Amino acid sequence: MSYQEIFAQRKSIEQVEEGKELAPKFDKDGFIPVVTTDYQTGELLMHAYMNAEALAKTIDLGEAVYYSRSRKCLWHKGATSGLVQKVKEIRIDDDQDSVWLRVDVQGGASCHVGYRSCFYRSVPFSSAAKGQQPVKLKFEEIQKVFDPKKVYGDAPNPTKL
Amino acid sequence: MSYQEIFAQRKSIEQVEEGKELAPKFDKDGFIPVVTTDYQTGELLMHAYMNAEALAKTIDLGEAVYYSRSRKCLWHKGATSGLVQKVKEIRIDDDQDSVWLRVDVQGGASCHVGYRSCFYRSVPFSSAAKGQQPVKLKFEEIQKVFDPKKVYGDAPNPTKL
Repeated sequence: MSYQEIFAQRKSIEQVEEGKELAPKFDKDGFIPVVTTDYQTGELLMHAYMNAEALAKTIDLGEAVYYSRSRKCLWHKGATSGLVQKVKEIRIDDDQDSVWLRVDVQGGASCHVGYRSCFYRSVPFSSAAKGQQPVKLKFEEIQKVFDPKKVYGDAPNPTKL
Repeated sequence: MSYQEIFAQRKSIEQVEEGKELAPKFDKDGFIPVVTTDYQTGELLMHAYMNAEALAKTIDLGEAVYYSRSRKCLWHKGATSGLVQKVKEIRIDDDQDSVWLRVDVQGGASCHVGYRSCFYRSVPFSSAAKGQQPVKLKFEEIQKVFDPKKVYGDAPNPTKL
């Protein structure tokens, strides 16, 4: 099944919002944002992107396949680290321009820094920050689940300044 | 407190990933994607965007303020609908290019179509779709929480084809 065939053309707001056809909107660069949560706990694990091929492969495989904008290639999550995300459910939003994956993570971590979730730090509200400039983040995860140097070796860090 | 002062300059990968300074990365159009979940249930409610001003206002107010890319203006969620999102926690991800809001929704709905969550439809896996072209979505929420015509009247629909 090719991905051109499984996605419908976007024809009307009613079709997109109230209909049953999968008609995803990719942005001008060909990407759609993806939100990935832990199926058991609901915790937000990561925010990433797919292109049409990655979304089609995810639907096909039942494992999360993203598009890495920094490495400019399809990214079958876990291919390097072993931390494959088994997709339990895929959802799409009202205007079909973002995707929600509910996953089970083999190994229990999704973050290349070594934490369980990529969102391991919280931002205080102004009332709590008491005029800090810049605002100081708080670590909500204390301990890394794995050592990224052992898992990724010398692979380039995907974070861009 | 102006938003230029509460955000740090991005200087190194170590600072961004392992540090305590809030140093968000806005894309070339000035936006950062935002994932909003229900604080109680963990359900994904919506995926939206902020600019620097919207993020600063959210930190300041403790209520979700987004940037509407379709309407090209700051968007204090609930200003029209009354469905204000009280922010219980703000988190930022490893490379600080996406934001997670955990919110309580007054009124219990976050979707302009009238559903509780914007992600009210699921996408079947290929194994379940049995060759459907295009793939047929399944409604996971059956009933709308509110009637969008009554709430928004003749305001233009934000969905773009």
